[in-house]
Amino acid sequence: MSLKLYDLAAANPAIRFSPHCWRARLALAHKGLDVETLPWRFVEKERIAPSGQGLVPALVDGDTWVADSGKIADYLDQTYPDRPLFEGPQARAHARFLEIWVSRVLHPAILRQIVGELFSFLDEGDQTYFRETREKRFGMSIEAFSEGAEAALPALQATMDPLRVTLESQPYFGGEQPSYADYAVFGGFQWARVASSKDLLESGDPIAQWRDRILDAFDGLARSMPARAEQ
Amino acid sequence: MSLKLYDLAAANPAIRFSPHCWRARLALAHKGLDVETLPWRFVEKERIAPSGQGLVPALVDGDTWVADSGKIADYLDQTYPDRPLFEGPQARAHARFLEIWVSRVLHPAILRQIVGELFSFLDEGDQTYFRETREKRFGMSIEAFSEGAEAALPALQATMDPLRVTLESQPYFGGEQPSYADYAVFGGFQWARVASSKDLLESGDPIAQWRDRILDAFDGLARSMPARAEQ
Repeated sequence: MSLKLYDLAAANPAIRFSPHCWRARLALAHKGLDVETLPWRFVEKERIAPSGQGLVPALVDGDTWVADSGKIADYLDQTYPDRPLFEGPQARAHARFLEIWVSRVLHPAILRQIVGELFSFLDEGDQTYFRETREKRFGMSIEAFSEGAEAALPALQATMDPLRVTLESQPYFGGEQPSYADYAVFGGFQWARVASSKDLLESGDPIAQWRDRILDAFDGLARSMPARAEQ
Repeated sequence: MSLKLYDLAAANPAIRFSPHCWRARLALAHKGLDVETLPWRFVEKERIAPSGQGLVPALVDGDTWVADSGKIADYLDQTYPDRPLFEGPQARAHARFLEIWVSRVLHPAILRQIVGELFSFLDEGDQTYFRETREKRFGMSIEAFSEGAEAALPALQATMDPLRVTLESQPYFGGEQPSYADYAVFGGFQWARVASSKDLLESGDPIAQWRDRILDAFDGLARSMPARAEQ
């Protein structure tokens, strides 16, 4: 029985950049589970209809569909208890705040930096979808939102400060070893790395050093996806 | 052997408002440990010199001094393993990001709302100390910083959003039961409640409902400290 993961793809179907899909990819790798990833585009809602919703990641395990990166992590720990992503219910609960903060605070701040380049590498049908949905969310055009990137860079650096300070006292968000919390944060940096040629982190930054450790994990799984500058 | 906790006090020594001291008070209560709290003022550095630094909370357990709320939590779990504040090292590591985010992001945003009233109820010597240290940090006078409070209120509400969303999916930051993560967040709200007559939360807010649960915990320990309007 093989696992399948619907995974957001750029116009080039080999390029996978979704931060939430990378959470799921690394969670699967953490557990040592093989997975076949299926390139998917925003407009292909019918292909994942059995998941009960219209976004990826969507995991298919036999007859079971699981959507949402956090729910996928919980499903994997319940179904495949070896190499847990969470040591217990309190560790899971504590990680939830981090997960939510990343999705609601860190991701929008990163997106502002990368949205122009990200838009340009989407498939044509997805460009239309992305423009419609994101311009409603931004309250302005992609181009206007993107123009504000330079001015918003100091705010992004300030936003990342609690990540930085945490990594000054422990090597991973999970402590001595990476946990799902690490993958939840890493997704946003992988998104930026694959979609954009900008580097948001200076090389001495503790976040950059931690990012390197996650890029190298699992035989360099995340690093094997080429950065934008190498595509 | 009784535990003692040096605890920041207002001009009225019965009024204790420090967010970091409340973390320690609740951590001690969580573990069912009795503690004698000693009122302390910012200027009384010599009284806590054996702690190796000049800030409270400082816990004294026999010959052992422990400063810093997070280190006090760790010390309590190591020394008194019953009723753990953390289920294990990963839960502790996950809570660290939350602790750091609260101290670096939530606290400054709350302080802007309450600083005028807070300043006014400090002891005279502490007013001088507070003005000197905080005006350096703010880059402006307490009065100027305080004047910006009204305009900064929407930003505080947005800052609190990840707390709110987390509490929509679980009753406590620790999950089904409160953990040290809850006390780390609660300290900031208790600070606001004791120092200021403003209420930062509307009654239907999930954060307000959670705050009520912590105020009621341990036989109403936190609620027994009068709110500013009742002092």
